[in-house]
Amino acid sequence: MSKNEENTMTVELRKRIFGELDQLSIVDPHTHINPLQPASTTLVDILGYHYYTELAHSAGMPKEQIEQEGLEPKEKVGRLIANLGPIDNTIQYSWFVEMAQSLFDWELPVIDESNWEQLYDLASEKMAADTWPQEVLNRSGLTAVFLTNDFDDSLQGFDSSVYIPCLRTDDLVFHLAKPEVQQRLKAATDVDVSSVGTLREAIGKLFDHFKANNARACAISLPPDFAPEPVSDNRAETALESILDQGPSASESQMRAISNFVFWTLAENCLQHELPFDLMIGVNRGVYANGVYQGQDLYDSRVSLIQYRRLFNSFPQVTFPISVLASVTNQELTSTSWIFPNVVTNGHWWYSNTPTFIEHDAAARLEAVPRTKQIGYYSDMYKLEFALPKFRMYKRILAKILSERFVVDRGWSEEAAVSLGTQVLRDNTARIFKC
Amino acid sequence: MSKNEENTMTVELRKRIFGELDQLSIVDPHTHINPLQPASTTLVDILGYHYYTELAHSAGMPKEQIEQEGLEPKEKVGRLIANLGPIDNTIQYSWFVEMAQSLFDWELPVIDESNWEQLYDLASEKMAADTWPQEVLNRSGLTAVFLTNDFDDSLQGFDSSVYIPCLRTDDLVFHLAKPEVQQRLKAATDVDVSSVGTLREAIGKLFDHFKANNARACAISLPPDFAPEPVSDNRAETALESILDQGPSASESQMRAISNFVFWTLAENCLQHELPFDLMIGVNRGVYANGVYQGQDLYDSRVSLIQYRRLFNSFPQVTFPISVLASVTNQELTSTSWIFPNVVTNGHWWYSNTPTFIEHDAAARLEAVPRTKQIGYYSDMYKLEFALPKFRMYKRILAKILSERFVVDRGWSEEAAVSLGTQVLRDNTARIFKC
Amino acid sequence: MSKNEENTMTVELRKRIFGELDQLSIVDPHTHINPLQPASTTLVDILGYHYYTELAHSAGMPKEQIEQEGLEPKEKVGRLIANLGPIDNTIQYSWFVEMAQSLFDWELPVIDESNWEQLYDLASEKMAADTWPQEVLNRSGLTAVFLTNDFDDSLQGFDSSVYIPCLRTDDLVFHLAKPEVQQRLKAATDVDVSSVGTLREAIGKLFDHFKANNARACAISLPPDFAPEPVSDNRAETALESILDQGPSASESQMRAISNFVFWTLAENCLQHELPFDLMIGVNRGVYANGVYQGQDLYDSRVSLIQYRRLFNSFPQVTFPISVLASVTNQELTSTSWIFPNVVTNGHWWYSNTPTFIEHDAAARLEAVPRTKQIGYYSDMYKLEFALPKFRMYKRILAKILSERFVVDRGWSEEAAVSLGTQVLRDNTARIFKC
Repeated sequence: MSKNEENTMTVELRKRIFGELDQLSIVDPHTHINPLQPASTTLVDILGYHYYTELAHSAGMPKEQIEQEGLEPKEKVGRLIANLGPIDNTIQYSWFVEMAQSLFDWELPVIDESNWEQLYDLASEKMAADTWPQEVLNRSGLTAVFLTNDFDDSLQGFDSSVYIPCLRTDDLVFHLAKPEVQQRLKAATDVDVSSVGTLREAIGKLFDHFKANNARACAISLPPDFAPEPVSDNRAETALESILDQGPSASESQMRAISNFVFWTLAENCLQHELPFDLMIGVNRGVYANGVYQGQDLYDSRVSLIQYRRLFNSFPQVTFPISVLASVTNQELTSTSWIFPNVVTNGHWWYSNTPTFIEHDAAARLEAVPRTKQIGYYSDMYKLEFALPKFRMYKRILAKILSERFVVDRGWSEEAAVSLGTQVLRDNTARIFKC
Repeated sequence: MSKNEENTMTVELRKRIFGELDQLSIVDPHTHINPLQPASTTLVDILGYHYYTELAHSAGMPKEQIEQEGLEPKEKVGRLIANLGPIDNTIQYSWFVEMAQSLFDWELPVIDESNWEQLYDLASEKMAADTWPQEVLNRSGLTAVFLTNDFDDSLQGFDSSVYIPCLRTDDLVFHLAKPEVQQRLKAATDVDVSSVGTLREAIGKLFDHFKANNARACAISLPPDFAPEPVSDNRAETALESILDQGPSASESQMRAISNFVFWTLAENCLQHELPFDLMIGVNRGVYANGVYQGQDLYDSRVSLIQYRRLFNSFPQVTFPISVLASVTNQELTSTSWIFPNVVTNGHWWYSNTPTFIEHDAAARLEAVPRTKQIGYYSDMYKLEFALPKFRMYKRILAKILSERFVVDRGWSEEAAVSLGTQVLRDNTARIFKC
Repeated sequence: MSKNEENTMTVELRKRIFGELDQLSIVDPHTHINPLQPASTTLVDILGYHYYTELAHSAGMPKEQIEQEGLEPKEKVGRLIANLGPIDNTIQYSWFVEMAQSLFDWELPVIDESNWEQLYDLASEKMAADTWPQEVLNRSGLTAVFLTNDFDDSLQGFDSSVYIPCLRTDDLVFHLAKPEVQQRLKAATDVDVSSVGTLREAIGKLFDHFKANNARACAISLPPDFAPEPVSDNRAETALESILDQGPSASESQMRAISNFVFWTLAENCLQHELPFDLMIGVNRGVYANGVYQGQDLYDSRVSLIQYRRLFNSFPQVTFPISVLASVTNQELTSTSWIFPNVVTNGHWWYSNTPTFIEHDAAARLEAVPRTKQIGYYSDMYKLEFALPKFRMYKRILAKILSERFVVDRGWSEEAAVSLGTQVLRDNTARIFKC
């Protein structure tokens, strides 16, 4: 190989590896897709996503303009388009452009106030086809996507081999004191929760229901100060009485006890039902109270996985795919997955889902965590159209890391690099979630 | 484009983008310039800067040699030069070399004990010219610089359109218990502070004075454990009585209450006077008590912007340009600016003002924060000569990020990249601070 | 220089700089070598290292298979080899391959179940030679290695100019309450510790013994919540009585007091005996209780060097080479070494000893800490064969940083870059430890 060839290698190599990875048919192991309406019907389903509304709002667009009652979809899109200039540097904006180009066959160099209606109409037309959701899946290289189901979801009316149920448990762990949650639990299980025993029974029934409907994971998002501990039945009984009696005005201590009890019970059910338990660690809800819908949450990066030490030790047979909200927690995740057999790295979540953090975090994992224990990426999407640009962003970064840090720095062959990429993108998801 | 051309692209591209950015005329939005003596008179004003004295001291030079009473400037420079060998790897040292080459027309490859007197004389001669400050501004591409003014600064005797006042408030928030601060406040406002009402009046008068003299910001540096909260007038009254009575020996709780009250009152005045409130978060003062002058401060990186949650929510109309001392806080800053309209990223402060941290931090901001909400850089300088090398360091890193992460990774045009760089270097400062 | 030449520069440059650095003869300033058996006797000494056992275990290999009583070395190696597939992406695995190629003259492209016995026999044969330890040192470019000696080590039976003693003090600081530690201390010093005075005497004797046997450092690893403070003799007396009486069941407060007292006394002895005090900050022991041997420790990255503020101020004449376990603490280390003359950066420890973290951390140090105050790397090895691949990993990263960040970004000459690399790899270790 001549010097010139050697030096053209990296850029070309990245493209080739990306090309290989972009051919794969994979499963997206975490989304918020509604299986009854998986794809968008107009561009408002795209630009109404909180990543755009919160950025436009942050750049100065009043919340009232965005969330005005009864606003027509097209009007809302027009207003948002007029406010995207200040965010056209963001990677989130680039997803929109890539979506337009790759899914709506948009060919103009920019999308702006002069031409957006054309795009709106183009998209609406495509989205109107019955085959659209399947076409989006096909173009995106997806064979299936995981859902995020409320615990009382009927799980009916969709193909659960393509839209795979996942039991989301935030409400049970953190909001069981609310009467409406108690009512939903009763409605879902036909169990009147009045004791630790009946609470366990109700939770068990939820798992039975989800397992019977092809669920492949249990999942929860957790605030930075959560540190799970087992709670004795007696203590749990007291806490349960308190929240049944007082609702959300029960004391902090009772609320914490019942959260811990429910959380631990979920882990026990994951063990029994052989479900991985996805933990998404670090979010503080409602920090910016006047933010737009879904644009109000932040975090305290002072969180440690040491808080989960007892959990990981207590459930060696439960697999915990872990997502951390802040990149500064990524090394702890890497180290914990390095020694705990039941801890697995899981994607790049939310505020860490931007290229600089992904690159730093994924590189650290790829070189120190067993290759079988890394779930490379999930889209976290609400509508199917987002998978394509989000996964492509990740695949480009993965290709960059594999090229620079494995082929160039460590002398790996291109084939070996693609094989590692394939494993973290496709194979591990399939094996860990049995899907 | 051929393969070779493609691959020569990045290095050349960085240079071209840097060249464009280095042509801009901009405002430096945070310095410690003395407007009555803005530039250096001898090299001692350069090498006496704490970045050099503390590094030389850290590398073994006794403090007494540096801070000896009555030491002649030239002798001090000679002593420091003799101790710069161990720090010639640092980026700070590179600023000195770039300054010598670009401002003093130094042409030899090194500066050492054999030739420094030549440089000393060369510099002294140039600095002696009346036109020197303006020449330095011109060569540095600066049209104006922000000052850091004590609250009792008269703000007289200089052109406030070039040397723009900024009300620095550390003394008011953290040292109001000291009798000398109380006396300075009285002297500056003619208000005898004896109650919450008169304290508010005095602070209001400071803002009036600063606004009348073209001030464009209020600023403060904050320790890592500060978490601002509103304080009721009654509580503040008790705290004020206590510190007026007992001075700095007042209890921790009273001190904290008065700090919080003054801080909140400053924010109210920023709202009323339409001034951005620069928060520089994270410094612990006097950690190394025997360090050289200005070389005694460090930090505890366990700080979170969640501590400012209530402030950001309470003052939606006040813009908060935020600097963080530790790079590990940068993601929180990025995320907070991503959703809060009134939070803006501000430069790369102090211990984070070195290339590796700037590159990581700036890249994360550029791809996730609206482009209108990023103030790229400020010099923090004490003498005008520092702007040129510090800004050039930043511009080179910015050009690197724009080349690698925008043009190469994301397919941006060179023009678009330069435009983004221009916005964070020049336009945002002008718009946010109305200067 | 043509464009093409310019662009071939970086890759070639990295190789040239690496080549220069790899020629150096250096001292490894921290290892766990047993000087009576410094090199391996079979491959089990290599693959039995916790980096492999814990990764294989993490990837699914049962602990019982690894740590089965009475397992033959060859059988254990065979079992481990069969479980290395899932970890062949890790940098740790790459050390094994590089070792095989550079030390055992292995020439096949892979090591797997089909050929590992060949490698086993090849290695055993080489290791059987009396000259093997010296040959490994020679091939690795090492002239000497530091040991990690228990405080009651006789330090006899080896050449202390090649195997340099280092007094490891974890047991004294954190386990003095254990009767066996007290007995070992008595046996080592002939002092019956029954008072603060005799405790001081015993510790002094340990230092005398170590100094008389060429010790060049005192060292300790510290948990994240340790924050050293001086303890009065009276307080220490109470604590000592308590632990002598109650052993490890003494109260938390007494345990902390005696830890602090012993730690401070060690620092006093380092001062008196002119020994650097290596602090390895941040480890939590036994987090994964059922992990394999030496694969049970993790950390809480919420640690700050501010906890050591009083120590650094109290012992200005003691040099503290500091290692941090988490990369997020590296900036604090960089900043602390930047201003404290007695604080020195020391290597890349354990969970931070992987390329992405080394690259980020070393780059930050190289550009902001005096070049004389950086100890680039130590191997932390248990057997001599590990030095070669570990140091080469570091040298490659160092060469990458020097090429990209010094020669390309800052215009340094290649010679200057090599000289900086030489200083952090070789010269600083020699000067700081006087070896």
